[in-house]
Amino acid sequence: MRQKRDAIRLVADHIESPALDAESRVTDDNHQSLRLWLRMLSCTNLVEAEIRSRLRAEFGITLPRFDLMAQLDRHPEGLRMGDLSKRLMVTGGSITGITDQLEQEGLVLRDAVPDDRRAYSVRLTAAGRRAFKRMASVHEGWITELMAGLSGAERSTMCELLATMKRGLTAPEQNDH
Amino acid sequence: MRQKRDAIRLVADHIESPALDAESRVTDDNHQSLRLWLRMLSCTNLVEAEIRSRLRAEFGITLPRFDLMAQLDRHPEGLRMGDLSKRLMVTGGSITGITDQLEQEGLVLRDAVPDDRRAYSVRLTAAGRRAFKRMASVHEGWITELMAGLSGAERSTMCELLATMKRGLTAPEQNDH
Repeated sequence: MRQKRDAIRLVADHIESPALDAESRVTDDNHQSLRLWLRMLSCTNLVEAEIRSRLRAEFGITLPRFDLMAQLDRHPEGLRMGDLSKRLMVTGGSITGITDQLEQEGLVLRDAVPDDRRAYSVRLTAAGRRAFKRMASVHEGWITELMAGLSGAERSTMCELLATMKRGLTAPEQNDH
Repeated sequence: MRQKRDAIRLVADHIESPALDAESRVTDDNHQSLRLWLRMLSCTNLVEAEIRSRLRAEFGITLPRFDLMAQLDRHPEGLRMGDLSKRLMVTGGSITGITDQLEQEGLVLRDAVPDDRRAYSVRLTAAGRRAFKRMASVHEGWITELMAGLSGAERSTMCELLATMKRGLTAPEQNDH
């Protein structure tokens, strides 16, 4: 792990031009950060659009429905509506709509929450779990195909860099805003 | 450029374990691709949520409105509604809503499209361009701050890898689906 990151740094130091003065480096950093962000956004949007259209064509379902089932698959004990809404970053209203639909198809169940009479949690039924597993395996194949432009080694490097980025994003000092 | 990519490959080859048989490598590739995708999605969502909330707090505007103005800023000659919808990957209805609002505030203008009586294009007014420049400069500062978890060199490496990924995503063989 440590060896890997040191190796990346070594290459990175070699790449970076040492000849910038302080001010042009600031502008340069800004532009580089913006370029990085726009590329990331663009790749994410391309993959997401492709997955969205394949899910519709292959299984006749929407991406939010797939994402909701994925969350429930990771939490067999069930999740409250509020948790789902937060994890999926969508409104409570859309969660309720998708859940109603899945319940009618026998793929999820609603359970009362002991200490809160108005709240309930949702979990996959056995049929829901089977349905999701089938889709998830096809989905994984699509992602593998879509990421195939990078070698295994390049994917490793990028996984590392994203982990570093994520630590920066969730670090305490970021929460001051 | 070439030297950079060769250097990344060299490190990458060193990282990758050579001792996997064919089948476990397939599974491994799948899991690695999925992990990479989920990390990318998670980072993108974190940054986007933060930008969304700062745009609202600082300028009282939505992210789709900022994105629409950004597209128009890049195309001073104006863009048709259909182009905007495709570029922003949102429905024509939301584009119309945002455009109406911006027009009322004097930030955009609608122009008739010569060869199509029902179509029109949208462009920023001088006031719209000024308003966007102000926001864009603050936005760039936020992105720089949010990407600061990576060193300049790590950002370079990631920019390269994203460019490679994007070429893979937009390559002709991907369009067969």
